[in-house]
Amino acid sequence: MEPLANGVLKADIKAAAKLMRYIEEEDTRAIDELKLLYGHTGHSHIIGITGLPGSGKSTLIDVMIEYFRSGKKTVGVIAVDPSSPFTGGSFLGDRIRMQKHSFDKDVFIKSLPTKGWRGGISKVTSRMITVMDAMGKDIIAVETAGVGQTEVDIKNLVHTTIVVLVGGLGDYIQIIKAGILEIADIFVINKADKNNTEDLESDLKNLFSLDTGSAKEGSGSDKSNAGSIKESAGWKPSIYLTEAANNKGVDRLIEGIFEHENYLRLTGKFSNYFRSKSNNDMKEIISDYLSNLLFEKLENDSLYKKLLDDLIHNDSDPYTAAEKILNQFLNFKK
Amino acid sequence: MEPLANGVLKADIKAAAKLMRYIEEEDTRAIDELKLLYGHTGHSHIIGITGLPGSGKSTLIDVMIEYFRSGKKTVGVIAVDPSSPFTGGSFLGDRIRMQKHSFDKDVFIKSLPTKGWRGGISKVTSRMITVMDAMGKDIIAVETAGVGQTEVDIKNLVHTTIVVLVGGLGDYIQIIKAGILEIADIFVINKADKNNTEDLESDLKNLFSLDTGSAKEGSGSDKSNAGSIKESAGWKPSIYLTEAANNKGVDRLIEGIFEHENYLRLTGKFSNYFRSKSNNDMKEIISDYLSNLLFEKLENDSLYKKLLDDLIHNDSDPYTAAEKILNQFLNFKK
Repeated sequence: MEPLANGVLKADIKAAAKLMRYIEEEDTRAIDELKLLYGHTGHSHIIGITGLPGSGKSTLIDVMIEYFRSGKKTVGVIAVDPSSPFTGGSFLGDRIRMQKHSFDKDVFIKSLPTKGWRGGISKVTSRMITVMDAMGKDIIAVETAGVGQTEVDIKNLVHTTIVVLVGGLGDYIQIIKAGILEIADIFVINKADKNNTEDLESDLKNLFSLDTGSAKEGSGSDKSNAGSIKESAGWKPSIYLTEAANNKGVDRLIEGIFEHENYLRLTGKFSNYFRSKSNNDMKEIISDYLSNLLFEKLENDSLYKKLLDDLIHNDSDPYTAAEKILNQFLNFKK
Repeated sequence: MEPLANGVLKADIKAAAKLMRYIEEEDTRAIDELKLLYGHTGHSHIIGITGLPGSGKSTLIDVMIEYFRSGKKTVGVIAVDPSSPFTGGSFLGDRIRMQKHSFDKDVFIKSLPTKGWRGGISKVTSRMITVMDAMGKDIIAVETAGVGQTEVDIKNLVHTTIVVLVGGLGDYIQIIKAGILEIADIFVINKADKNNTEDLESDLKNLFSLDTGSAKEGSGSDKSNAGSIKESAGWKPSIYLTEAANNKGVDRLIEGIFEHENYLRLTGKFSNYFRSKSNNDMKEIISDYLSNLLFEKLENDSLYKKLLDDLIHNDSDPYTAAEKILNQFLNFKK
């Protein structure tokens, strides 16, 4: 049988969808296919879009897709947020609107409901990125929910992190403080027509020492980065005001995304990302292999069962037990 | 120097706080202390409280603490949600309100901002539970943000999972479908005074085939479980309507929590939880040790560097590289 990888490399949607199902189900056939794809990756610009439910991320991505497509760029979307209309999980009409892209063979949308995953989010998302990259997608957008550890992880999976906020919600300020916003390369204040954006803007500017005037109503782009690329290797987050539902301000955001891509390429960080992803992928696989090999052996082992019984009867602790297991089973060659 | 563990076993707050800092920072001293504590754990009833920002979880926990304290129970709180007023991260006045418990030596509140963690959420939370359990806390409440993979993980870390919702928000329906609600042992519909709860109630009842009449305005308890414990080993989630901010309905919820604890004890599931936690803790530690041992060796290894270079130049894939590494370094004894 022909490997799915051959289809994926021709951007065949059925082959890609099947491989993605293998990945989600931790089917071992996924590994054989991914082996064939890896050498064809490293091309895509990977963008993370994160924000709480209700911030309008999905609508924003929807409009962004139109801009990317009008520039002839092919697009992949990976929706990790369970409340996203991109996920099959949505009850609401939003999903139907998104489906207009399903007639465009150069837009591939994959939703990852978090339900019942055996692997971690990072691992599965990283593998989905590999598939879409091998399909030749110019842009891969990864949508996440904007709360919790996932967000910090997502930073390591993408080139450009966009944090989507809406004004007038006290919750966001708390999240700022909790460190979620520190992962942003670009801020979007969405629904700028419906909510007061001034407090949020000034909070962001104060927290990140952004130049005043960096977020002008209607234009909303911080142009200071053009200068700062020359001056130093640093990147200052820009703030963009958008009304995604009315297609306002998104054109400027798209320019900002390309500015960031440009910055990454000029500083060598674009390819550093791929080095870092490869290293992480390899380490993750090594860890997985190691644990699986060992746990398979432990399954019916009497020492393991005895140690577990000791634990339950408060006669031991898992650290001492782990040391005993490792001494029993492992021998490092060097 | 006296081990911190001695202090922790006497419920000393300073010793516990210091050990928790070691755990967060992955300081190796944490392990030596945890070894001494593990044999003294397995006593606490561990409750997960999960829900989106704005659902009023923290206020609910605040009121729950008062009920537990009036019943002379000692309480620990682990707040994993970065938007929680329990976390140091909060800008808002809510935090001050929570601090009233800081004068009560039998309430210990620990916030875990997700920022900058080296370990995973599950591991760190599991270790914090061990410390609070060793301190002798009768109840340990773990607060999480209600979006994403974390929620599914949290189910395995607690005895009783409470999902807090508010009526009138379409987002919640999407989250239902995404599987977050399937982890619930108890549903709370909070802010019942402010929002229409009927749609949410009937959705929940339909999805989980709950008996009608299980959620009565004002009382809000599903009493059908008393019968179902006798009939079978299954547990049907109950629905409680609360107005935590006005201290309404929480008394009934507390009864529901004790009903669930009772169910767990009658069916042997209460102690099964500890068996499962011990097993997970041991496996996690084994995985950690294994990976650390190996990655330490790889740090300066020329084969590893060559393989990584091959990856970056698209001459290899991380799966094949991982296999080579394992063949080079590892030898399973049995």
